[in-house]
Amino acid sequence: MRYAILGTGIVGRTLANKLASLDHDVVIGTRDPQVTATRTEPGGYGIKPYSEWQESHPDISLATFRDAAAGAEVVINATSGGVSRAALTEAGAENLAGKVLIDVANPLDFSHGMPPTLDPVNSDSLGEQIQQAFPDAKVVKTLHTMNAQIMVEPSRVPGEHHVFVGGNDADAKAHVIALLGEMGWPPAAILDLGDITSARATEMMLPMWLRLWQALGRPDYNFHIQGA
Amino acid sequence: MRYAILGTGIVGRTLANKLASLDHDVVIGTRDPQVTATRTEPGGYGIKPYSEWQESHPDISLATFRDAAAGAEVVINATSGGVSRAALTEAGAENLAGKVLIDVANPLDFSHGMPPTLDPVNSDSLGEQIQQAFPDAKVVKTLHTMNAQIMVEPSRVPGEHHVFVGGNDADAKAHVIALLGEMGWPPAAILDLGDITSARATEMMLPMWLRLWQALGRPDYNFHIQGA
Repeated sequence: MRYAILGTGIVGRTLANKLASLDHDVVIGTRDPQVTATRTEPGGYGIKPYSEWQESHPDISLATFRDAAAGAEVVINATSGGVSRAALTEAGAENLAGKVLIDVANPLDFSHGMPPTLDPVNSDSLGEQIQQAFPDAKVVKTLHTMNAQIMVEPSRVPGEHHVFVGGNDADAKAHVIALLGEMGWPPAAILDLGDITSARATEMMLPMWLRLWQALGRPDYNFHIQGA
Repeated sequence: MRYAILGTGIVGRTLANKLASLDHDVVIGTRDPQVTATRTEPGGYGIKPYSEWQESHPDISLATFRDAAAGAEVVINATSGGVSRAALTEAGAENLAGKVLIDVANPLDFSHGMPPTLDPVNSDSLGEQIQQAFPDAKVVKTLHTMNAQIMVEPSRVPGEHHVFVGGNDADAKAHVIALLGEMGWPPAAILDLGDITSARATEMMLPMWLRLWQALGRPDYNFHIQGA
């Protein structure tokens, strides 16, 4: 299947690498491919420059948000939450219409210092904002409640733990649930929380995820709903 | 030990019953004991009138917030989050000073309909607001991320799951951790997240708790941090 992954950070690269390893066609979307491809300084969180990562992933191509989305059957939003709507607007509503749009971003607001706050919060969510802005896309919120490495290799955390799924379109969720299965998530680990308003709840787990990172000093844990 | 439990709802009654069964002295605090004791209509969520509950718990006495707190060594805030600060103000700062103040409340705001929103949220929390308003109390936030029955009988949820603890005073947290042990929480299930600012993170799990209740149709689950 042809996937577009919007975003060149750790999450985007990790998902791209995994999907390519599963024999999917993967194009990464970015605002300006020329700038991304020639950048030589490390990215956020000290990750290696994209050009260096690209060398070891020759099967994964880079394109504009628009071209990546246009050529894809499924689009994954792996941009930073604060710029997700702008990135998806660049991708173009017509290139998202009718497609499964997997939203793995979190609306973290770093403008007030650390730890980041959430915006929107409470009675709205990034997942809902994206669904509302692109009503013809089939938005499914998932995978945003854990470290990127665990998204694609859940067995890194021994024992049972959950990945949450929320969205309005049953077929789109079924697609995502199948994809999660391909990535190693057992059926019992996939918890469908209903429609896209469930993103309010799951996005609000991020402060806990961040606090646990601080308390444990490592990111190799995940949420499990015991008794679910 | 002498415990005051502020709040006559399900959480307050459940904790009172458990602490009394553990041979602690328990006084429940309420705004107006006369009104509470003579009320004959069911309480919120259809719980039986307090007077009826009282009949089967003759060892648990009812007093004003102030008298309950004044006579206690440890105070538990089990009031609704929206009125917690008012209730604690009635209890009196001088009756909280130097004492462990266990905050099990959540700042749920029902004024915008269901599901409730959180207020405060993000860069503040009810736990912090209480600590700030009563600086001489030793506030410990705990037990607020689960159903009341599970608070006092964690084995109702088979398998491993967590209770979170946050507070600024190490001795107060040690007291609370010992109390949790008395109530059946194994040491490995008690996760200390540091100071009271951790209440921001744990209170923000409530929307997820509520969403799970909606999705599962029952409240007998709890959060587990797999890999912690």
